[in-house]
Amino acid sequence: MRVLGIDCGTEYTGYGVVDLVSDARNNDRLVCIVCGAIKASPRDPMPTRLSHISIGLSELIARHRPDCVAIEDVFYATNVKSALKLGQVRGVAMLAAATAGLEVAGYSPLSIKSAVVGYGRAENTKCSKCHPSSESRSIPEPADAADALAIAICHLHTAATRERQSATG
Amino acid sequence: MRVLGIDCGTEYTGYGVVDLVSDARNNDRLVCIVCGAIKASPRDPMPTRLSHISIGLSELIARHRPDCVAIEDVFYATNVKSALKLGQVRGVAMLAAATAGLEVAGYSPLSIKSAVVGYGRAENTKCSKCHPSSESRSIPEPADAADALAIAICHLHTAATRERQSATG
Repeated sequence: MRVLGIDCGTEYTGYGVVDLVSDARNNDRLVCIVCGAIKASPRDPMPTRLSHISIGLSELIARHRPDCVAIEDVFYATNVKSALKLGQVRGVAMLAAATAGLEVAGYSPLSIKSAVVGYGRAENTKCSKCHPSSESRSIPEPADAADALAIAICHLHTAATRERQSATG
Repeated sequence: MRVLGIDCGTEYTGYGVVDLVSDARNNDRLVCIVCGAIKASPRDPMPTRLSHISIGLSELIARHRPDCVAIEDVFYATNVKSALKLGQVRGVAMLAAATAGLEVAGYSPLSIKSAVVGYGRAENTKCSKCHPSSESRSIPEPADAADALAIAICHLHTAATRERQSATG
């Protein structure tokens, strides 16, 4: 299973594509395919920024063909204005997934934090397979990329746990 | 000048296309071309709803070819969660405009209210040229359509005022 994790932001939108692969002994292993961040210039008007993020995410989906998309469920924000701005990027990210026929799974910040504990914090330094993206619209941005990887890992962890539960249940 | 006004909402997204035309005596007149609302089913997941709204708005833009898009600047919301939801729709609306190469103008609720006073409240009953849309994805929804018309009228009023000021300035 391949997941695209997206960490929405009005300036940097982090992304991480992660595979869950099983070896001959049926041990699961995570492989980071690509990670990085799409930068939207704060000097551009918001519609231009959203267009840039939309094109970047659609290109990522077309190139890496994930099975689904995972994003963070946000229930907090410093204020209503920042919630609206973040919502705009979130809407564009969900639309990119829906347009490609992909389901979107949302996870709370706590779920994401809990899920990555089992695999260690998804810092770039820990993700040996992950290298800065060469996508034309992207620049490597460690913090946002790591958060996006954590979201993808959370989804894979949740899916693997559900599968085990249904096998033993 | 032709403007598409959009009143964003997670269930009903109102729209109104309005022309500003001048007669032989140089008197301005507003002509409502179409108005209505795109309904997104609350039973559908949010990415599906956003996709539905995106397709509906893109079809409207392609059919009626507005010169620009006007939406409401929202700085209020009952809570952060509703602000995030509204932001998602707003992001998709701005993306539809940007994808079509159209500029997006934002107006405060107070500006919109002030602007429509000169033309009378943009109720459907006052807008004799406006008839329920026959767009396949739309159903007429008076309140949302009227709000969208008010946003479009606000933009035309502001543009006309600016033009007069620059002509006499």
